[in-house]
Amino acid sequence: MPPVKRLSPPSSKRVIDGLRSLAARTSNERGAQRVAWGPVWREARAWFTERVRDELGLPVQTDAAGNAWVTLPGASKDGIIIGSHLDSVPNGGWLDGALGVVAGIEALRRHAAVGTPPVTLHLVDWADEEGARFGRSLTGSAASAGTLDAERELAHLVDRGGVRLPDALRENGIELPRMAEAHAYLKGLGAKAYLELHIEQGPVLEKLKRPAGVVLGTMGVERHTVRFRGQAVHAGATPIPLRQDAFLAAAEFALACRDIGLSFSGRTPRTRVVATCGVVKVEPGFVTAVPGATEISLDLRALDAKVLARMQAAAERAARAAAKKNRCTVNWSPLLSIPPRPFDGTLLELCAKAVREYTGSAPELPSGPLHDAAEMAPLMPTVMLFAQSSPGISHTRLEDTPRPHLDKSIRAFLRLVESTVAHVEAGRAGDDARPRAVAKKRSGR
Amino acid sequence: MPPVKRLSPPSSKRVIDGLRSLAARTSNERGAQRVAWGPVWREARAWFTERVRDELGLPVQTDAAGNAWVTLPGASKDGIIIGSHLDSVPNGGWLDGALGVVAGIEALRRHAAVGTPPVTLHLVDWADEEGARFGRSLTGSAASAGTLDAERELAHLVDRGGVRLPDALRENGIELPRMAEAHAYLKGLGAKAYLELHIEQGPVLEKLKRPAGVVLGTMGVERHTVRFRGQAVHAGATPIPLRQDAFLAAAEFALACRDIGLSFSGRTPRTRVVATCGVVKVEPGFVTAVPGATEISLDLRALDAKVLARMQAAAERAARAAAKKNRCTVNWSPLLSIPPRPFDGTLLELCAKAVREYTGSAPELPSGPLHDAAEMAPLMPTVMLFAQSSPGISHTRLEDTPRPHLDKSIRAFLRLVESTVAHVEAGRAGDDARPRAVAKKRSGR
Repeated sequence: MPPVKRLSPPSSKRVIDGLRSLAARTSNERGAQRVAWGPVWREARAWFTERVRDELGLPVQTDAAGNAWVTLPGASKDGIIIGSHLDSVPNGGWLDGALGVVAGIEALRRHAAVGTPPVTLHLVDWADEEGARFGRSLTGSAASAGTLDAERELAHLVDRGGVRLPDALRENGIELPRMAEAHAYLKGLGAKAYLELHIEQGPVLEKLKRPAGVVLGTMGVERHTVRFRGQAVHAGATPIPLRQDAFLAAAEFALACRDIGLSFSGRTPRTRVVATCGVVKVEPGFVTAVPGATEISLDLRALDAKVLARMQAAAERAARAAAKKNRCTVNWSPLLSIPPRPFDGTLLELCAKAVREYTGSAPELPSGPLHDAAEMAPLMPTVMLFAQSSPGISHTRLEDTPRPHLDKSIRAFLRLVESTVAHVEAGRAGDDARPRAVAKKRSGR
Repeated sequence: MPPVKRLSPPSSKRVIDGLRSLAARTSNERGAQRVAWGPVWREARAWFTERVRDELGLPVQTDAAGNAWVTLPGASKDGIIIGSHLDSVPNGGWLDGALGVVAGIEALRRHAAVGTPPVTLHLVDWADEEGARFGRSLTGSAASAGTLDAERELAHLVDRGGVRLPDALRENGIELPRMAEAHAYLKGLGAKAYLELHIEQGPVLEKLKRPAGVVLGTMGVERHTVRFRGQAVHAGATPIPLRQDAFLAAAEFALACRDIGLSFSGRTPRTRVVATCGVVKVEPGFVTAVPGATEISLDLRALDAKVLARMQAAAERAARAAAKKNRCTVNWSPLLSIPPRPFDGTLLELCAKAVREYTGSAPELPSGPLHDAAEMAPLMPTVMLFAQSSPGISHTRLEDTPRPHLDKSIRAFLRLVESTVAHVEAGRAGDDARPRAVAKKRSGR
């Protein structure tokens, strides 16, 4: 008798109650304050440990990188991972990260309630997804994925108060040189799928008037600092045609980048790309001085690596043209280059089915923001489910999902867990010699 | 026998030697360091006092605002003022300000050498023209002109080191509440003309290939802070058409202001106007955030008050259009509004004649930068003579005037002093009942 049939219908009640109880303990009037490695974040983890104990009767185990794991053993060691993060930015929202973790507790509870599940269910609360204090995001999941070089990337980081990251880690029982051991822990689980529920953090589903969406993958990112150099001169004394105004060059570049973003975007959410200039520094920065230098950041994102490369080339042409027109020079410094992480085809189908069941349709969209799922995608079949943001903003206490949409998103995610469990179990039963059947299907995308 | 005939031919030798000697005493490898109210500035003033004593045998008298005056008494108390400033910005040039003061010493020496001049010659080294340390420029000349409200404008100012301006003034023997008495000192002189020689600080004369120019007046200034407000959202999560990007609104505004500057500029230096955005502050200023707010400065300048008002109106329209297009709001805060100060018609003619005599032609140009002359122009007939800048930059040790051009500019200025003395004397002789004849002519411009 397949255990799927015996599960209670998915319900969001305990999840929403849990999120409220977590918020009451770790937020103030300015929002969530669960900044990784600090006292309020430890308070959130204490809440998590208690909740897991009370709901599941299971212990929480912390790996070498500070990720908190709960394992619900199944009939088979093969299993799935449900993950997200309890840490928040300062003055953050109640759902960003926490939604996925608290829904994960409910997923395990629901399966545990009917006996031993056919496969093992793991729940992980990743450490320091936000990077809000030290600037490196996805710290815990990258360590698990084996993509973090802690000595090179973390050892030198210092927060605004002068605290070194290695000391903040030690406060939480983590030794920086041993963080890489988290990768062995993950590999030892032998998980066959990774699932993550998250709030969208953008306006796409709200615009589509859909409660939830199927995430196609995380966009690739090309991030650069672009420096225009002209000549600082007196604003009153220098006729406009004789100027080399580095800010006007940067302004033309920024507007050209918007046009690039618009022209490379297709008509559907799937083919949407973005281009953003978020940091602008003008020198000398006097009211009476024509800007002699301007530094501007460019962040390009696309789900298709080829499109991303063509956007980058177009932006480089635009920078050269803006520099030339304003008699300036231009230089590029790379900040970040991350390839797109498309999610697994089979899990996308399961996710679409679950979302359709509870919301009537299954809109697809890529994730512009990175998520821990991006670290898992190269290692195992991965998918994310987004709950609508309304308003479509993030990293603020105003972040929210309307209650009916939140309810449907949680229930759809619980159904996705259920169908993924069945899928992994079916893969195991069908062919013990091909335990990574899902992964193979993925390569066909 | 008119004293003009008896003067020696104008020579630049002593002036250039003097400038070199001053630079040797008050500059370092980064340039001039004569920041007002500080020790190097006092050193410059000590040099000035010694030079005046050695060349003229005259004392230096300091007024209640810290302006240093030298008076060469003439047959009549009626007279002229030659003025400029010894103070500099940090790392400034050797000519900015100092040229006019040192040429003034030579002008007095040249007239003193042939006996008592027909009218009185005053030389003034204005205090704190630059405002480099406390931010308020033209401090000394404004106090003399009676346009400075010291309690309101100065009492609260503090430098970067935390020193209060009233304390810095006291270090120099000046009591802030008594600065207004400088106005009575100026009025007591009964001067009939104000003359100032200055380096251009821009590229106009260099572009025209002219050694010197006749300054038509100082441009009026409209200076504002313009704030665009949109919505800060996640750069990855928010499709471009759904954004309210305050920086892109500001970028469009800045480019529109350049177009306004170009379209309101006539073909000649006289009708040139400028528009500059020199300060740009973007919030939140993260690589991954669409800018929710941008503050940008606008500095508009024109010699014609009506043109300036029309530029301002056009800029306001451009700001509204840029805000609307980007779904932002816009607000203006005034920073400074100074009317144009056209110079005196008769003195402009005398200046043109002198410049033509030494350089072959007399190009006219407005001054975009403000000068102490702008404070004197409402009180008495005023004119300035510019020496070419090459390169056309200012407030840097690289500021310079090619030696042959410097020589011609100084000689033309000495001739201008000579002809202005003759003109004031002629006005006195011609009609004692109309001692301000020159001023009346000016009202006809």
